[in-house]
Formats: sequence, C-alpha cells, structure tokens
Amino acid sequence: MEKELVFGHQKPDTDAITAAMAFSYYQNQLGYETEAVALGEPNAETQYALKKFGMKAPRVIKTAANEVDKVMLVDHNEPQQSVSDIDKVTVTHLVDHHRIANFNTAQPLWVTCRPYGCVSTILTEMFQQKHIDIPANLAGMMLSAIISDTLLLNSPTTTDHDREAVKYLAKVAGVADYNKYGVAMLKAGADVDAKSDADIVDGDAKTFELGGTKMRIGQVNAVELDDVFKRQADLEKKMHELMDANGYQLFILIATNILNSDSELLVVGDNTDKVERAFGHKLDANKRMNLPGVVSRKKQVVPPLTDAFEG
Amino acid sequence: MEKELVFGHQKPDTDAITAAMAFSYYQNQLGYETEAVALGEPNAETQYALKKFGMKAPRVIKTAANEVDKVMLVDHNEPQQSVSDIDKVTVTHLVDHHRIANFNTAQPLWVTCRPYGCVSTILTEMFQQKHIDIPANLAGMMLSAIISDTLLLNSPTTTDHDREAVKYLAKVAGVADYNKYGVAMLKAGADVDAKSDADIVDGDAKTFELGGTKMRIGQVNAVELDDVFKRQADLEKKMHELMDANGYQLFILIATNILNSDSELLVVGDNTDKVERAFGHKLDANKRMNLPGVVSRKKQVVPPLTDAFEG
Repeated sequence: MEKELVFGHQKPDTDAITAAMAFSYYQNQLGYETEAVALGEPNAETQYALKKFGMKAPRVIKTAANEVDKVMLVDHNEPQQSVSDIDKVTVTHLVDHHRIANFNTAQPLWVTCRPYGCVSTILTEMFQQKHIDIPANLAGMMLSAIISDTLLLNSPTTTDHDREAVKYLAKVAGVADYNKYGVAMLKAGADVDAKSDADIVDGDAKTFELGGTKMRIGQVNAVELDDVFKRQADLEKKMHELMDANGYQLFILIATNILNSDSELLVVGDNTDKVERAFGHKLDANKRMNLPGVVSRKKQVVPPLTDAFEG
Repeated sequence: MEKELVFGHQKPDTDAITAAMAFSYYQNQLGYETEAVALGEPNAETQYALKKFGMKAPRVIKTAANEVDKVMLVDHNEPQQSVSDIDKVTVTHLVDHHRIANFNTAQPLWVTCRPYGCVSTILTEMFQQKHIDIPANLAGMMLSAIISDTLLLNSPTTTDHDREAVKYLAKVAGVADYNKYGVAMLKAGADVDAKSDADIVDGDAKTFELGGTKMRIGQVNAVELDDVFKRQADLEKKMHELMDANGYQLFILIATNILNSDSELLVVGDNTDKVERAFGHKLDANKRMNLPGVVSRKKQVVPPLTDAFEG
C-alpha cells in the first residue's frame, strides 16, 4: 500500500497538529502506511504540550503532491485552509468538526465529521470503538487539543462528548488535575508579549469568502486583553499589510480573554457596517467591539457574519 | 426536539428509500424525532422488496421547508439530486457513499461517508456499533438495497463490508438463500417491457456537470439488452425531449445486463468524442458502445468521463 500523508490546517493550532498525529497512529494500527505532517510550526501552546508529554512536532510540509498521491485531512476541509497543491492529490479520508465548504472530490471517500468541540474527541471515540489503545503521551496531546479548542470546556462548542473524552484521556495520560494543567497550557499559549504583531493578528487566522467579501479572521488568546490593545497601532499596521498582500477586503481580530471567556473584536477594512449588523453592536472610536461570552470563531463569530454578509 | 425529515435522492432506487427508512429508525432509537420520506415513488424492484418484507413505501415529498427546518440526507449530497428547496433547510446529518460535490453547509454537522457499495451497509455497521437491533423486515429491505446497489455483490463497488453485511442481514431477515432472492428481486426490477420510455432513460438518471457540460446519465437493468435496444428510436426521442426541456447537452443511457454484468451505452448530444475518449472506444453507427464488465455508473462511468471532460 502506498504511503499517505495526514495533516491539519495551515497555521496549525494544538488540535490540527495533534489530530494528524492521532489519526496517523490510528490508521497505521489498522494497517495503512501514513505519516503525520503539519502545514506550519507548532505555536507556543502546542510546544508546551509537546514538551510536557515528550513528543516531537511533525515535519512541516508546504506541498504534498511532490511526495504522495493520496492524503488524509483532519480538522479542515476548505481547500484554502489546506496544503497549497491540494487539487493535485486525492483526499481518501477526512475527520473534521467544521462546516463543509468547497470540499469536492472526484471519488467516494471515508468521512467522519461530528459537531463536537474538537477533532481529538472524534478520534478518541474512534479509538474506543475499534478497541485500539491510545499511548499515554498521545493521549496527553489529545487532552491538550480538547482543552485548547474548548478553552477548558468553557466554549459553547463544547459537547458532552468532549467532557467525556477529557476525563478518559486525562486518566490514560496520567494527568491528575486536568484543570490545573489546562490553565498552565492555555497561559503558555497566551503570552502575548512574547508574540510578534504578525503572530497576534495572523497566527491563528483563517480566510473566509462570505457574500463575495474575502475576509481574514484571526484570534488571539490573552490573560489580559490590554496586553493586546496596548499594541493596537502596530497590529493595525500589520493587518493592513496582510490585506494589501493577500487581497483581503476585511480583517477581524478576535482577542479572547481565556480566564473570563470574553472577547473584543478589532475590525479594519470594508463593510464594517455589516460586521456591526452581524453582532448588533456599533464599533467604538477605536474600531473595537466588546462581545461578552464570545469565545468561538466557528460558532459565535462566523455564523452571524455569514448571515450579515450573505443574508 | 423538533421533527426532522430523512430522505435519499430524487428518482429513488432501493437504497435511497431503504437507507432513509433505516437511518430514521436508527435516529428514533437514539431519541430523535424523524420521519423517513422519499423524493419519488418506489420503482418496480423496490416495490418487489417492500411487498416481500411487508413494509410500506415512505410518503413522497416534493419540498421540505414547508414542513421542517432540519433534514437528514442519505445516499446523496449533491444539491441537484436532493429536494428542490434544499437551500432553505439545514442539513444536520449525512450518510453517503458517493463523491462529495457542491455540498456546502453553514454549520458543522454529523457526516459519515464510507466508500462502500451501499449506504445500507454503512448503516448496518452503525446499528452494530451502537448495539441496536435491526427489525427483521427492515433488515430484509437493507439486504435488498445492498443486492440492488452491488448487483448481487458483482459490481466493482462491492467491498468486504458489503459482503459481511449481506450475510448478517440475510440471517436477521430470515432469508435462507439470498442469491435466489436477489436474482428474483433484480429480475422484478429489470422487466424492461413493463417500463415506459421515460422510465428506461430517466428512471434512475442523475445530472452531472463535468467541465462545463451538463449531462444526464441514466441506467437501466435488463435480462436481455435487446429488450432495451429494440426500442432505441423511441428511447432516443425521449432523451432528446428531456435534453430540450432541461438543458442537458449530453445524454448517456447505460443498459446493464444483470446476468452477465456487461453494459452497452447509448449516447446522444454534444461532445460524444469526449465520451469516446473516456472509454477508449468508438461509438458504432447506432451511437452505441459495448463495455464488457462495466456495471457501476459511479465507479466505472463517471470517473473516466470526469477525466475526459475536465482533464
């Protein structure tokens, strides 16, 4: 059987990297020959988790077709979030928890999507169903991924499946107090002062095309939102640079306080009136909008934007 | 919880109708409130199976949004094969074994696709995983669906999963000799003389857009291919009528001999040279092309056409 590569989305977060490692391990146990790779270097949070559980980051690739004919995708399905030459390879497997958008295949394939908080939760259930043991260090990474995606089970994307998986994985990984570990891991990823302007605005950003508007939506976690906005002038400059270079018409940065689960948006570009309509709030004189209780780009930011831009 | 409708594709075959019945039953066992419906009346083969196992055909609907906000799709994902107002409802679940094409959602959802011969096989495994008993008459329908989709396990789409499911379902349904039952059921569906010209060319047809060409591909099963082609002049007339009415540029009818698993194509419309290139054969003076061993539209007809029209 020919080798396949397994990877998550560009600008990988902890789940994108971990889900690739876990699904590759799972498929190899079933007899496939796969290698987990990543479309970027691990961020500070992922590095903290990798160090904690003694695992190495996957190799970074920029293109796939130079190595393989077939790939397996985790944690994304939209082509513009994938490897740059995704149209030149065949996707044989997909495990995801996002909306399906512009994902077209020539052939039937293996897809498992669930509306859970984290792909690592879906994978935990797959391991359980096939009675495949999860190695302790991999379980630690999967625990970290769920804590990351759900902000320690506080995001509205969190399901009972995620809560069950966290308990199970903490036990397998030998993590006695997952709340304590989770706060330490989230804080490691939320050290805003250690991040460049580009990291803050674009490190976890995704591109969306809504109603003809090409927009970039970044998200940064912080312990104090002022750590982000004290640098607002520099961040705006970087956002405009990226807009000019990539043709984004709109750039939204979501700054999320991981301790109280509130967010503040910084919005630059065109059609900001539609952003205001999406959330029913006006931007203030600093182009910012406070959104208490909003932590999930996927569940609380993209859907109202979709309604406002496509409605 | 609000009620959801579950349905398969337009021009339903035995799997489209059965998979809706089976997935609705499965979801109701899990606590959802669903109703299986169909986008058309059952064909002769499905009627034979329904009668054999004492089940009623699902209610036929033309639109969904007048009844419900949410739906579950089985055995199709392409919007043009679905209910006419699919864009006005939310798809919450999908179980399928086809390529993914133009299936876009605003929200994450529950998807299980497997490259198996039949959706009823995927559903059989789902019942088994959740330890939900399949009632004997429903098992008989699911057995019939797999026999139908795989031409009694002879189609190249057949997987070991389908073979296992057939054995399991035959036992649950109390069908002692599934080969004997399967031939009788396929023959009931292959009574070409009992079918109208429209039934033959369009009864199981699907629309595809390949490389900008809108084409209709129908398939009819027969015990003798001559039963089809003795009516060729009338069939061509009907194909041209449907092309004019629906803007198809190309119409391909696959006539399949269910006893020896050979097919013959009848091709009318534009770009017939690309059809010839797809299969590496010339059409004869009667616009026909013999394709020994070809029985699967999905696996043996659409992929080479895709290469020829989009390559």
